[in-house]
Amino acid sequence: MKTLIFGHKNPDTDTICSAMALSLFLGDKTQAVRLGKLNKETEFVLNYIGEGAPELLENVEDNQDVILVDHNEFGQSINNIEKANILAVYDHHRIANFKCVNPITIDIRPVGCTATVLYDKFKDNITKTMAHLMLSAIISDTLLFKSPTCTDRDIEVAKILEKIAELNLNTYGMEMLEAGSSLDSYKTIELLDIDTKEFKTDNGYYSVGQINTVDLEKTLLMRETELLIEMKKRVDDKNFDAFLFVITDILNSNSEVILVGEHSELIASKFKKELKNSKITLDGVVSRKKQIVPNL
Amino acid sequence: MKTLIFGHKNPDTDTICSAMALSLFLGDKTQAVRLGKLNKETEFVLNYIGEGAPELLENVEDNQDVILVDHNEFGQSINNIEKANILAVYDHHRIANFKCVNPITIDIRPVGCTATVLYDKFKDNITKTMAHLMLSAIISDTLLFKSPTCTDRDIEVAKILEKIAELNLNTYGMEMLEAGSSLDSYKTIELLDIDTKEFKTDNGYYSVGQINTVDLEKTLLMRETELLIEMKKRVDDKNFDAFLFVITDILNSNSEVILVGEHSELIASKFKKELKNSKITLDGVVSRKKQIVPNL
Repeated sequence: MKTLIFGHKNPDTDTICSAMALSLFLGDKTQAVRLGKLNKETEFVLNYIGEGAPELLENVEDNQDVILVDHNEFGQSINNIEKANILAVYDHHRIANFKCVNPITIDIRPVGCTATVLYDKFKDNITKTMAHLMLSAIISDTLLFKSPTCTDRDIEVAKILEKIAELNLNTYGMEMLEAGSSLDSYKTIELLDIDTKEFKTDNGYYSVGQINTVDLEKTLLMRETELLIEMKKRVDDKNFDAFLFVITDILNSNSEVILVGEHSELIASKFKKELKNSKITLDGVVSRKKQIVPNL
Repeated sequence: MKTLIFGHKNPDTDTICSAMALSLFLGDKTQAVRLGKLNKETEFVLNYIGEGAPELLENVEDNQDVILVDHNEFGQSINNIEKANILAVYDHHRIANFKCVNPITIDIRPVGCTATVLYDKFKDNITKTMAHLMLSAIISDTLLFKSPTCTDRDIEVAKILEKIAELNLNTYGMEMLEAGSSLDSYKTIELLDIDTKEFKTDNGYYSVGQINTVDLEKTLLMRETELLIEMKKRVDDKNFDAFLFVITDILNSNSEVILVGEHSELIASKFKKELKNSKITLDGVVSRKKQIVPNL
């Protein structure tokens, strides 16, 4: 059985593209797989280069060899991850709720994108397809270098990849982000599944979803009631202490956050905000990882 | 305040020498410190090159910047590690009972020694002193390449370091290991503090000590009763489910393990052994990390 390489549930472009690039590097003994439906942005990327989507994985067998990219928290991974044999982790998130029995390779760095971490591993072995996948991952995770999670290293690596991929970073990047931010084709309930992750902290059990948009009013106002009803349902079903849904305006870099659950007011207060109609507005906040999760 | 770099409690040669080498690489804004008394082997190394021992650290202040080497489990670190601001981890152990709030640099690899992990970071910037420290760490942790934890990479790196340090690997290595295995000057109770680590697993809370010797009979038989009394005392004090004391004969690569605590028989059975006088004999077992801890 091949070693399976995958990122987190509710896959985003970094999760899918970093898994694919790593599998291309490691060769036929590995296979990139995905834990959920591709989002519009990732579909755009794979269509652009004519690559098929990785196979959907619903469970792993006991002792299946796996490599994790773009996540390490077991709650964000495949359901029975505890039974898999994790060989390595390449990531750019905090470590939490992760453990292994034997020493393994763990390469985690505080950069904007998993593809940036992988770059140093691949070095001179990056093909045009790999470069395209990795560049798309960096553009996606850093919102074309606008996110506070973006580091100088992400920009450096993106500029090298731009040449190998034979693309114009800015033109391609804007096209890709716009393809991803079009939410028209999603049902309201589906918005909550585009990019939602669970976090267990010392304070509680939280779900944090995020979507990017270029039209916050339309995205939010038209669907607010429906979103609230579905969020409450999920909080009840899964006993979250709070569900945060972060709607990020990628043009002006602000976010509206809808908060549902018992810890809503407490969390609002950690951002020094008061809840108004179950919402808070966070100016200059675009990064779940760096600007939202540390307050939980 | 400088960034403090340290390894685990009950420091061994890798913990001390890797912390010192990393601080030499990162410069004056950092300081290597230690969490306990140096063992004889490490004393031999520092005397050989005329370097003083790192300062003893008993607590860290809130938000103190720290870098961890050669460990990541909070139970093996400074008491109030949860309050420190961990900037990075360089290690070669499993990840467990570790977490951080924000993404940080984590470089962990399944090799024999932390110094081998650091080598790729340092590359062309290794001074003679750094090479000596790192080479000593590799010799110590791999028992001069005899431990099953030793990888080809450890040997490769050691051979490069041997040239930079201007030492004969084998001559120096034997001398160093012998200096470390002389237990004559230790009181029996002190033997338990030379290299003892705590582990929390899904099955229980364990303490595992290890010493190396070239004279197992003398080390063990002369002191067995005293060791048992002190081990029972510690099991009661700290509520360990078991205390394992591993006495490793580095000449023939076997270990005698003294077991105390409620889980003693259960653990013996995991090694397919029966307890005799609170002891089991494990042929070919020299590595706590690879051959003991996975059975807990």
